[in-house]
Amino acid sequence: MIKHAFAKTLLPLLLSALTIGTAAAQSPRLVLIDQDGSGPGGSNQMSMMVLLQSPQVRVLGITMVSGNAWEPEEVAHTLRMLELIHRTDVPVVPGAVFPLVRTEAEVQQERTLYGTFEWYGAWGDLTAHTSLQAYHGPFVVPPLDEGEPTTKPLGEDAAHFLIRQVHAHPHQVTIYAAGPLTNIALALSIDPDFATLTQGIVIMGGSLAPQTSDPEYATHPRHEFNFWFDPEAAHIVLRAHWPRIDLTTVDISVKTQFTKEMVKEIARSGTPSAKYIAQYSREFFYLWDELAAAAWIDPKIITKERQLYVDVDLARGPNYGDTLTWSAASRPQRDLPLVHVQEDLDSSRFDKLFIELMSAPPLAAAGVK
Amino acid sequence: MIKHAFAKTLLPLLLSALTIGTAAAQSPRLVLIDQDGSGPGGSNQMSMMVLLQSPQVRVLGITMVSGNAWEPEEVAHTLRMLELIHRTDVPVVPGAVFPLVRTEAEVQQERTLYGTFEWYGAWGDLTAHTSLQAYHGPFVVPPLDEGEPTTKPLGEDAAHFLIRQVHAHPHQVTIYAAGPLTNIALALSIDPDFATLTQGIVIMGGSLAPQTSDPEYATHPRHEFNFWFDPEAAHIVLRAHWPRIDLTTVDISVKTQFTKEMVKEIARSGTPSAKYIAQYSREFFYLWDELAAAAWIDPKIITKERQLYVDVDLARGPNYGDTLTWSAASRPQRDLPLVHVQEDLDSSRFDKLFIELMSAPPLAAAGVK
Repeated sequence: MIKHAFAKTLLPLLLSALTIGTAAAQSPRLVLIDQDGSGPGGSNQMSMMVLLQSPQVRVLGITMVSGNAWEPEEVAHTLRMLELIHRTDVPVVPGAVFPLVRTEAEVQQERTLYGTFEWYGAWGDLTAHTSLQAYHGPFVVPPLDEGEPTTKPLGEDAAHFLIRQVHAHPHQVTIYAAGPLTNIALALSIDPDFATLTQGIVIMGGSLAPQTSDPEYATHPRHEFNFWFDPEAAHIVLRAHWPRIDLTTVDISVKTQFTKEMVKEIARSGTPSAKYIAQYSREFFYLWDELAAAAWIDPKIITKERQLYVDVDLARGPNYGDTLTWSAASRPQRDLPLVHVQEDLDSSRFDKLFIELMSAPPLAAAGVK
Repeated sequence: MIKHAFAKTLLPLLLSALTIGTAAAQSPRLVLIDQDGSGPGGSNQMSMMVLLQSPQVRVLGITMVSGNAWEPEEVAHTLRMLELIHRTDVPVVPGAVFPLVRTEAEVQQERTLYGTFEWYGAWGDLTAHTSLQAYHGPFVVPPLDEGEPTTKPLGEDAAHFLIRQVHAHPHQVTIYAAGPLTNIALALSIDPDFATLTQGIVIMGGSLAPQTSDPEYATHPRHEFNFWFDPEAAHIVLRAHWPRIDLTTVDISVKTQFTKEMVKEIARSGTPSAKYIAQYSREFFYLWDELAAAAWIDPKIITKERQLYVDVDLARGPNYGDTLTWSAASRPQRDLPLVHVQEDLDSSRFDKLFIELMSAPPLAAAGVK
């Protein structure tokens, strides 16, 4: 029993510690990006670029999931982004078009009973509030502002791609999950070893009690879009045995800000990524996904964290999809891993790294990969 | 239709405005206290004393409800408090011993699944955390530290007493509800005119996102004991057509503090109420119920409020009983009254009034009543 527990928990940790220790100096850290990739130059695309542009990182692939937009449209935006920043070597893999349980039709009814939110992502026509993008059905891909991609996605589904990559590099891959967690939940459901075979997961999701006047969080401090969009998937991910879980919540995200000044500074470098941002960035909002990515590259960006047990409310009521948290003293009596919840950041360190990476030349062109 | 709406909504408001305007100078404002009245000298008792000791107020009666303690024990503590502060003229009325739906046995199971809270009131033996008072069954009244009362409660149940008083003084009575809302929900369910016949309700309950290191609210910002203990009752109360609803939440309550210095200052007066506090006050915590009462007497104590739609999560999951809020833009499509949610206070004004009232001589003895 003890022997078994050692083999299942301590041994992989020791091995992965050795791996980090010896490999860090010479070879880049491996990451699988799982992301909802809406419009060009937006937060979703820029966060992928944080990882794609870092010489310390090797991106094994990008799996896509519906969230801020529908997955088929996201695939097109992401393929095009990779073309424009000269990184077509990175495979884009089609993932879940719909959440595991929650449906667009049900959300329409829930809104009548439980009230509305500011942001519905792919389901954006449910309310007049969310008219940032014109609504279309799941399998429609409207013409792209940034031009149509000529490259194609992989002919494999996201869950199987994730499993295959993790098994090819046991205990060496970090999952960077910055959209709804449908693909990750599918990988976990197919392969019970998936979580333990990774080096950990970085998640942008959840909300505790953000200090902000943003109306979305003032009346719903525990509501966050990624967890809300697929609550069952978030629950499956948050109970899995990851070697480590890092969580970038709304609370720390609202302390970041993408500005026009940043775009100006990035534009100066004239690199392909800088041109892409200068030409297409239109939303000056929080750098949530970018922070999750940058903090994984440089953990010193995070100046304060709390270890909490985190889950998602699955009761089909007004709080369905809301973030749940517990301390060690208050936790439920079931298997639940501790989560590193980021609380505060070194803003200038983060902004500097972000601007640097957005301004950097393409890694493939630099011969790193 | 318009005529009917006028009679139902505007007319009573105009009448009650006239009543306030003409009556304020000469006669005291009428209030019905609905409260969970745990141990001697505690917050529940002191908050009733805020109303009982004010010359501007006439307390028509005190209805008791299980919450911080079981109702039969609370009746004894409250009768004894009235004896000690020389106000046995105010009737104490037995109310609900159990919440409408939630049960002690179910909470025991919920704790396993959903984790624990710091405070369970009458159900205090559910966890080692909540050992502030020794647990006993609902109908046990242990010996009272402050001595046994010789006075008796009224031979009428709380709901009927509340209805009878409100009908006797139409549009003149404010309901002060500082415990779980079981009795008020029963009155509303029995008498559809109950809410509209009052002048309004003052509630201590709910939690939005308190700025505090208190572990209870750091991991559960939307959890508050009074709403949680009887969620269905809170829901019934929050959808009723009160002329006005004022809400003292945890968020503003944590900005208040009962201190040993206050007790010393109160003790100096040597009045019966001061003696009672000096002898029995042992918990130096927030002045939540006291603030709700004092702010009704002197509205200038509240320096900031927000108008929100407020409800309680009735889904039987981890957030069952949690506070829900919406703005006008995000509210559900159903009948829901606006609530005056208190946000900030003039602390010195509040502390001064509180100390003054706790130090005051008995009103009955002063011949006011």
